[in-house]
Amino acid sequence: MRTRAAVAVAAGKPLEIMDVNLDGPKAGEVLVEIKATGICHTDEFTLSGADPEGLFPAILGHEGAGVVVECGPGVTGLKPGDHVIPLYTPECRECDYCLNPKTNLCQAIRTTQGAGLMPDGTSRFSTLDGDPILHYMGCSTFSNHTVLPEIALAKVREDAPFDKICYIGCGVTTGIGAVMNTAKVEIGSRCVVFGLGGIGLNVIQGLRLAGCDQIVGVDLNDSKKPMAERFGMTDFVNPSEVEGDLVPYLVDLTGGGADYTFDATGNVKVMRDALECAHKGWGESVIIGVAPAGAEISTRPFQLVTGRVWRGTAFGGARGRTDVPKIVDWYMEGKIEIDPMITHTMGLDDINKGFDLMHAGESIRAVVTY
Amino acid sequence: MRTRAAVAVAAGKPLEIMDVNLDGPKAGEVLVEIKATGICHTDEFTLSGADPEGLFPAILGHEGAGVVVECGPGVTGLKPGDHVIPLYTPECRECDYCLNPKTNLCQAIRTTQGAGLMPDGTSRFSTLDGDPILHYMGCSTFSNHTVLPEIALAKVREDAPFDKICYIGCGVTTGIGAVMNTAKVEIGSRCVVFGLGGIGLNVIQGLRLAGCDQIVGVDLNDSKKPMAERFGMTDFVNPSEVEGDLVPYLVDLTGGGADYTFDATGNVKVMRDALECAHKGWGESVIIGVAPAGAEISTRPFQLVTGRVWRGTAFGGARGRTDVPKIVDWYMEGKIEIDPMITHTMGLDDINKGFDLMHAGESIRAVVTY
Repeated sequence: MRTRAAVAVAAGKPLEIMDVNLDGPKAGEVLVEIKATGICHTDEFTLSGADPEGLFPAILGHEGAGVVVECGPGVTGLKPGDHVIPLYTPECRECDYCLNPKTNLCQAIRTTQGAGLMPDGTSRFSTLDGDPILHYMGCSTFSNHTVLPEIALAKVREDAPFDKICYIGCGVTTGIGAVMNTAKVEIGSRCVVFGLGGIGLNVIQGLRLAGCDQIVGVDLNDSKKPMAERFGMTDFVNPSEVEGDLVPYLVDLTGGGADYTFDATGNVKVMRDALECAHKGWGESVIIGVAPAGAEISTRPFQLVTGRVWRGTAFGGARGRTDVPKIVDWYMEGKIEIDPMITHTMGLDDINKGFDLMHAGESIRAVVTY
Repeated sequence: MRTRAAVAVAAGKPLEIMDVNLDGPKAGEVLVEIKATGICHTDEFTLSGADPEGLFPAILGHEGAGVVVECGPGVTGLKPGDHVIPLYTPECRECDYCLNPKTNLCQAIRTTQGAGLMPDGTSRFSTLDGDPILHYMGCSTFSNHTVLPEIALAKVREDAPFDKICYIGCGVTTGIGAVMNTAKVEIGSRCVVFGLGGIGLNVIQGLRLAGCDQIVGVDLNDSKKPMAERFGMTDFVNPSEVEGDLVPYLVDLTGGGADYTFDATGNVKVMRDALECAHKGWGESVIIGVAPAGAEISTRPFQLVTGRVWRGTAFGGARGRTDVPKIVDWYMEGKIEIDPMITHTMGLDDINKGFDLMHAGESIRAVVTY
């Protein structure tokens, strides 16, 4: 079939909107009509050329929602008409990782997914001239139609609006999941969140859900404060306004250090601050942000020997097919908010404007609707 | 009273054996006759001058066992004749740290202990000329008699030999505790231990107690192998004999990475290897070794984002008054071994020979008996 897509033709160039060919689903695969997709910093990271594993030409986008159109042979858990959210971290429920309760990093299709291919080692996308176009993070939601393995689709309720729940495909789940699955924050905790962008806001609403006593938000941009407060931030710190070092300031503000801290900036210097303002004896710090290629985190080992723990999280530690439908329910029940974070909506033809808004720091999340 | 002690008169100089004055116990304090003390790398670290917090003159030693001679006012849990092990990490059971189940780092007397003083801010030790001599780690077991706060003494059974159980005051508890309290290793785990000295051997016997499937020991010295095997090591790796990088070699050897790894070297490069050979998705690495002043650990944050956890441990996460008596019981019941690790025993007059043996790598543990 033909469908319309925004194609990343090369690193550093704007996406090109064009018709592309899409082969139908093979065994275990599902054809999905994407109804909405968010534009995430990870798409930008790859498009810019900064991602050393980035491949071109490819159809980016990994934060979508849509409807099943057709199922390939052997697909048993989905049928045409089902509403789904694509999962860049699949959940096969059979690999060593899925069977280990400590991780969500299903490895069933990792190699082919990393190569921009479906599990059989080929791409479903091609140009109208027949040249292959690669998939991206197994999702390629910047196409009106896409093909995914069944294990990479979460079935969700049908009354949920696509242009909001698409954000659960990455940012919402990453932020809330970091709190819930990775840090396992307890009621009454004191926490610090570095970076009040889309991920940081979702960490904050996760911390509110977890019943925290104190939620400190740290950002260089004062304009982030009102929205973060809306989501549950209790204290705002702008590091440029702190006299002296930030770490002792935050240790003091949290009464001896935070029980949990979260880096949602991708800056390795900030990751260090996040660890070091965690409470001696038991504070844990979770790295969420993606650092530039080659960047390294550092600290004195004494920070760990005196009881701090350094962790990271991918997709918020969530098992997508199991957890994403629950988070959609929470949204529909008003337990979490998404709408205020979707600051811009546009058609596919304007997708490059969505990237511009993100560069300019004007959007929390721009969403493309088809 | 007068007692005989080995005094660290200045950084980098041999200990001087001399008579010193010792004031009796004040409120909450206990006079202990030390019967045996181990010589630990931490004593050497301070004596060498490498420890930036080292203070002189002081009476070093923190790995002892002895008998209560006299109790100061207000001491309720100990009486003369009780057998005790001094605790450089006390357990007051009242501070915020003691009341938090996640940590063992009692803070009740931290400031004065760090300054080489008893909790009232003074020293009990002085030269025969009346010049004060500092305490060390709150213990000063290189003196035939010493004074400690009651909260820094674990009461142990009276049939246990002092010249063996003194090692439980540091090395044994640190190694076994890192497994039991910090990593909480599960039955069937695959683990790697870096450094097969006194701490590493105790990590290994902790892992054997924990029912591990694989216990890999890593050391540059082949002569460490037989003893490590005796304590439970299943695989020995000498990095100098590995072709190519050590980390992928260990990942392969452990079938994808270790569930838990332990650094018992104090080398920050080794700490990085220990983290990076932990299993993607769930592997945890525990830093036990004390690094040189100013040394820093580093890694790419991707190592944590893909599920590895970086921890540290002090005194094996043990709460001394509670846990040390249990470990003494385990020794007396034959559940753990100590005797083969006590490779040398000497009188106080020969204590500098004990340091020489440690430098030369000839001893696992040298013990001074009084």
